[in-house]
Amino acid sequence: MSRSFKLTIAYEGTNFAGWQVQPGQPTIQGKLQSALARIVGEPVQVIGSGRTDSGVHAIAQVASCTLKEWGHSADSLRKALNTRLPETIVVTESIDAPDGFHAIRDATGKRYRYQLQLGGTRDAFEFPYRWHLKGHVDIERMRLAASRFLGTHDFAGFQKAGSDRKTTVREIRACEVIPQSLSEHFATDGRLHFAVDVEANGFLYNMVRNIVGTLVEVGRGRREPQWIDEVIAGKDRDLAGQTAPGHALFLLRVDYPEFG
Amino acid sequence: MSRSFKLTIAYEGTNFAGWQVQPGQPTIQGKLQSALARIVGEPVQVIGSGRTDSGVHAIAQVASCTLKEWGHSADSLRKALNTRLPETIVVTESIDAPDGFHAIRDATGKRYRYQLQLGGTRDAFEFPYRWHLKGHVDIERMRLAASRFLGTHDFAGFQKAGSDRKTTVREIRACEVIPQSLSEHFATDGRLHFAVDVEANGFLYNMVRNIVGTLVEVGRGRREPQWIDEVIAGKDRDLAGQTAPGHALFLLRVDYPEFG
Repeated sequence: MSRSFKLTIAYEGTNFAGWQVQPGQPTIQGKLQSALARIVGEPVQVIGSGRTDSGVHAIAQVASCTLKEWGHSADSLRKALNTRLPETIVVTESIDAPDGFHAIRDATGKRYRYQLQLGGTRDAFEFPYRWHLKGHVDIERMRLAASRFLGTHDFAGFQKAGSDRKTTVREIRACEVIPQSLSEHFATDGRLHFAVDVEANGFLYNMVRNIVGTLVEVGRGRREPQWIDEVIAGKDRDLAGQTAPGHALFLLRVDYPEFG
Repeated sequence: MSRSFKLTIAYEGTNFAGWQVQPGQPTIQGKLQSALARIVGEPVQVIGSGRTDSGVHAIAQVASCTLKEWGHSADSLRKALNTRLPETIVVTESIDAPDGFHAIRDATGKRYRYQLQLGGTRDAFEFPYRWHLKGHVDIERMRLAASRFLGTHDFAGFQKAGSDRKTTVREIRACEVIPQSLSEHFATDGRLHFAVDVEANGFLYNMVRNIVGTLVEVGRGRREPQWIDEVIAGKDRDLAGQTAPGHALFLLRVDYPEFG
């Protein structure tokens, strides 16, 4: 009798070519699928709540899979996977899901965090986890601009050029500029660590990274906070700021209706 | 006119084959030497205070080098190097040093930190920085055992088998078991983060990793704290505990007499 599972997965994405399977490249989905195949002895498809790009990290990505038979507890599947996965991919939870549970279709929302460092010297240890901005950036201006993303809008101007989604309307439920503690490893040198958290019912390709790049334009004083409204209204990728680099992005959470 | 420099270097060692140049492998020394060669247009030798192994990190490794001529400030050399180094190697300080300054010969002491995680689930983000111990480990027993390393002893039993140093006598000035804060990324799950700091006038090959592996034997209750005295007296590598893995080791500091 087949059983559906909801897997929650943390990964340090630095040395992976993103979530989605690509021939000849190390990917999170690929590592999960090959670990599952070794456990059950036949190919198993793992469906993630969405792709994450090369270098992007996850604190709690969610994936679904269905096994033809599994006579042990759902938590035993977590343990079996963790002994077969690379050290930088960890299944943090495995629970039984309703028949046909589908990590993409059933997701009701997601939260991402984008980490930044302002000023200070380059940091060998923070590098994989922060975008280092040099020169003057006004975080209060970024905060004012961030609030203008809230609500339901057509975010066509914030997706990667050439993307092909049925609809580009999304509801942004939170867009917050938040302070963060300093690294415990290094003395302060005038650096400031902060992050941008974005929560929505769903995201377009590169949407968080384009939002962050656009907020930085405002922080640098090149644009006013109300310019955000124009970029949203323009629905043209060329109006927004640069795409922020992937290595500083974390998928924090994916939301689903409660089971049962 | 030639000028000697003292460079302080931080590196995230995960993707390097250690400090020392090896043909066809990415190494810290190799990256520094090739960056310097590009800056001054000829080969330059960089001497580190000591080798660090594959995967070992440094908060403040120290290296010396001599340039035939350098018409700018010592800090300009730091900036020039940082623009040519990988993101995970950062020169944090560059200062003028006395003629003939030699990072190995002139060092008077060093401090290493070895990071551990006790219990809890595997952590995709802490993996490169901690040794994850499962099962029961008594940290208070480790602390009692640690104090027995203090003082001047022949540490022949704690160096890698087959090493060939003139003398294996070293003075350990600190050997401390210290608590550490939890990762900010993950909820607690019964895990405990702690570290072993070892400071000495010098270290033998694998010495910190062998001390830590030996302390863990005591923490697990397989040996009593006073067993440390026997292992030191025995001067035989086979008596001590296992060599702890390299990825959790940090070179924190190298000490030199004050210049000038």
